[in-house]
Amino acid sequence: MRTRPGDDIADVQNQPDGRGIALDYVGVTGLHYPLSLRSPEGGAQTVTARVDLLVGLHGAQRGAHLSALVEALEGARDQVVGLPELVALVRTMRAQQDVRGLPADAGALRIRFKYFAKKYAPASGAASLLAYDGGFEVELAGAGGGEKSTFVNVPITTVCPCSLEISDVGAHNQRADVQLQLWQALDDRRIVWLDELIRLVEGCGSAELFSVLKRRDEKVVTERMFETPRFVEDVVRGVVVAVRERIGGVRYHVRCESQESIHAHNAVAEVSGRSA
Amino acid sequence: MRTRPGDDIADVQNQPDGRGIALDYVGVTGLHYPLSLRSPEGGAQTVTARVDLLVGLHGAQRGAHLSALVEALEGARDQVVGLPELVALVRTMRAQQDVRGLPADAGALRIRFKYFAKKYAPASGAASLLAYDGGFEVELAGAGGGEKSTFVNVPITTVCPCSLEISDVGAHNQRADVQLQLWQALDDRRIVWLDELIRLVEGCGSAELFSVLKRRDEKVVTERMFETPRFVEDVVRGVVVAVRERIGGVRYHVRCESQESIHAHNAVAEVSGRSA
Amino acid sequence: MRTRPGDDIADVQNQPDGRGIALDYVGVTGLHYPLSLRSPEGGAQTVTARVDLLVGLHGAQRGAHLSALVEALEGARDQVVGLPELVALVRTMRAQQDVRGLPADAGALRIRFKYFAKKYAPASGAASLLAYDGGFEVELAGAGGGEKSTFVNVPITTVCPCSLEISDVGAHNQRADVQLQLWQALDDRRIVWLDELIRLVEGCGSAELFSVLKRRDEKVVTERMFETPRFVEDVVRGVVVAVRERIGGVRYHVRCESQESIHAHNAVAEVSGRSA
Amino acid sequence: MRTRPGDDIADVQNQPDGRGIALDYVGVTGLHYPLSLRSPEGGAQTVTARVDLLVGLHGAQRGAHLSALVEALEGARDQVVGLPELVALVRTMRAQQDVRGLPADAGALRIRFKYFAKKYAPASGAASLLAYDGGFEVELAGAGGGEKSTFVNVPITTVCPCSLEISDVGAHNQRADVQLQLWQALDDRRIVWLDELIRLVEGCGSAELFSVLKRRDEKVVTERMFETPRFVEDVVRGVVVAVRERIGGVRYHVRCESQESIHAHNAVAEVSGRSA
Repeated sequence: MRTRPGDDIADVQNQPDGRGIALDYVGVTGLHYPLSLRSPEGGAQTVTARVDLLVGLHGAQRGAHLSALVEALEGARDQVVGLPELVALVRTMRAQQDVRGLPADAGALRIRFKYFAKKYAPASGAASLLAYDGGFEVELAGAGGGEKSTFVNVPITTVCPCSLEISDVGAHNQRADVQLQLWQALDDRRIVWLDELIRLVEGCGSAELFSVLKRRDEKVVTERMFETPRFVEDVVRGVVVAVRERIGGVRYHVRCESQESIHAHNAVAEVSGRSA
Repeated sequence: MRTRPGDDIADVQNQPDGRGIALDYVGVTGLHYPLSLRSPEGGAQTVTARVDLLVGLHGAQRGAHLSALVEALEGARDQVVGLPELVALVRTMRAQQDVRGLPADAGALRIRFKYFAKKYAPASGAASLLAYDGGFEVELAGAGGGEKSTFVNVPITTVCPCSLEISDVGAHNQRADVQLQLWQALDDRRIVWLDELIRLVEGCGSAELFSVLKRRDEKVVTERMFETPRFVEDVVRGVVVAVRERIGGVRYHVRCESQESIHAHNAVAEVSGRSA
Repeated sequence: MRTRPGDDIADVQNQPDGRGIALDYVGVTGLHYPLSLRSPEGGAQTVTARVDLLVGLHGAQRGAHLSALVEALEGARDQVVGLPELVALVRTMRAQQDVRGLPADAGALRIRFKYFAKKYAPASGAASLLAYDGGFEVELAGAGGGEKSTFVNVPITTVCPCSLEISDVGAHNQRADVQLQLWQALDDRRIVWLDELIRLVEGCGSAELFSVLKRRDEKVVTERMFETPRFVEDVVRGVVVAVRERIGGVRYHVRCESQESIHAHNAVAEVSGRSA
Repeated sequence: MRTRPGDDIADVQNQPDGRGIALDYVGVTGLHYPLSLRSPEGGAQTVTARVDLLVGLHGAQRGAHLSALVEALEGARDQVVGLPELVALVRTMRAQQDVRGLPADAGALRIRFKYFAKKYAPASGAASLLAYDGGFEVELAGAGGGEKSTFVNVPITTVCPCSLEISDVGAHNQRADVQLQLWQALDDRRIVWLDELIRLVEGCGSAELFSVLKRRDEKVVTERMFETPRFVEDVVRGVVVAVRERIGGVRYHVRCESQESIHAHNAVAEVSGRSA
């Protein structure tokens, strides 16, 4: 649907629209595509990405050329990609929408995928993979502006400090999700690796998670988590401190949502800011 | 779409189909409708139900009359309903599909909704509501056969007996979902109340959940859960024993899935059976 | 968990936190509660709401008192509510967090629910209910600032103008979701009814949806939709024009996402703005 | 959690349970893991699988050894797998649970993943990938019994024959999901390729879907779908006929659910059977 001009049949998208209403974003959402992501070790990890591809639309034009967006992604499929290649992809998408003499000035890409990292159980050393929700976003504004960002969701354990303090025995604990997103300037050359963000966040909970734990590992993990009780507020503040110490010059958003084991609802804390 | 004959325009559903393939179920799914459910105290609770309405289709007919299914539900909207009224609704749905001389022999209804029960915190007595996923199902087969069933999902806490035993301090615990479904014969006059099933299940976990807990309640709940550690296997077996003791002559399915706080995956146990 | 001071046991939330990091929001999410919503006709509609309750947290305090948030909601349960009562609820929530001499300056509430409106089929007049996702949000900032908003998701049909123009017969069409959110100043006395927004949006698609359509209704709906083909861009611009004409002095966000019947992905258009 | 005996700390799972209630399944669910699937062309496709690993549990034993299940999967990670390797994996899982002299007699594996197939637009030949939900299941019963199965969900377009017949112009159409699952005996040596099932199902709708369609492709697809209107009943019967013709000696389940563009609910048809 909605291809670019050059075909010999009517180009309805390319009609003028008289209402003069520019649209922030037009595009495709919920497209699943395999991508090959650059790894810190120099290789690549094949992921199944859920992709949104978007461009701004001038007030004078009826519709965007959506098939060109998917073609641009298909064109990038054989590459190993990271944020720099995804920024280039959005520039290509935006340039291809240049019809009626008016290039799209905005362009955006948002992807989410399961990312796997290898973990070793703390006592036995048993190896397994843990899945994290990872993502990248690119936002191009007019006149060269814009940002690129890296996202990760890291599941952790939280032991409730209040429950631990007031109870004669035990404390409630639960799985919690920590979401960390960092925005960089488009010309920032530094690579923020998902693995780096995962390690940063895993150091801020009561305990980190593993896919395989033998009994002696479970003993270590349980005892460790009870030594470091954390509210969702504590986790978020810990992540903010670690980001400020390790990664300068970025905007951040940190959120921790715990699946409270004594309630049917969740507890949440979140904060946005900028590191110096 | 797909109304019953009597209109003066073509009835495409009512065309014959030459392939001779009867279909187990044809109908509508994902229809949201408000329902007024009979309560044990004599009143009613208004719920937002997600409804599937289905009939069998003979091999000789091309399509079912789907709008008649929704009309039957709309016709029941002003009633206070429980399983007996839902069985009557499915009989109506089935009878209305009697075209080409062949009544539908199968009919089914499946509904799911959030059901609220009042709870009092164990020390302070603070009142609040807790939401449970409830449901009813009716399955009519040919020649008078069939079953009706009641479903509830009850969130509880489980404290891991292994972690408690092997660790010097604490034990991992987490929210878990217990699903209990009971099937009765169509002519079984007994009413199985959702509230009865909820209480039965809440007695089988390490602790039950509450929407409001003050600090002295949290102390009670935490200490109680550490006195009654439960694997998912323990929970399921406990529910089976309770069903067998309290509700005779039913088929049951019991499943417990816990959101393990030391893993990113869940632990599950399930069993089906019949009480004497 | 996490009650307010006054109990005679340790108040861990109320401990100081030395890192000096204020949090934008702390609270509970995913709490299901029944609410009684004020209707335009003067009555009320009981809905099952999914509720988030949030407050800001000063840098000097370790944790918020989460049980007080749920208690505030429980306290409002017997009322018929609309946006004015929800604003009052957030003010109450915020005031109750005033500990260590520092009141929370931010407070927020976000609810979503299925909202039912009665519809009559266009030819037969057959009555049925259609479910819409509705919602309300309240955001209180410090010093009296903030906003309140009304949200609705309206499913419609879109017939593709391009497919209609270039094909010798037919055109692809599909279900699409239109999301409209309007923000008002806290002291804006006007009530924006969900029913009003639903009617506004349903006038902007190729056709509106119904739960019951007899054959002669289906004929009318089909023919009508092919007379008014709409891209997602057309729908969004039409909603913007209608909002500007009918509801002055609000911020708006409009989004249309169509489940393209010739693709496995969706098409989307969105825009934010302010009416004069 | 829950490792096998041999560690020098308490083995709580291995305790006896006095209630004598055998459990149908105990295991882990919702585990995400990357898998390398054998392709028809001889290569492999890396997928992100959602995995359930289950074993039966005798009435005499308290708990299963869940970490051994994940270890078995980790052990298979470097292999290229298909159903034969997955059957072997479940046999391994089951054998490793042999404690207290009683081997688990049941074992099961269920996986789901996005599977990508290359498609070429019908007029332009433009290449793109389309994502399908694929899956495999293995069910081992006692005494050598059991089954293995292959699952695919194929999105298609359906044009409503009723709407087409009764309307002066156009017809409503929509995206629909066709689910096809085939069960084979464990010793059936034939490989049922996902690609084969996808092609079979795509031949039974009004049209198949593509990720990239240029305008001249869209014209072809639109005109083609209006030549072959299909109810969900027609689609299901078409798939049954095709399975019976092409794949003998299997149990099948076929389901088609269409996201009706004139309703907010779906239409569904389904049938189970066995090919000769």
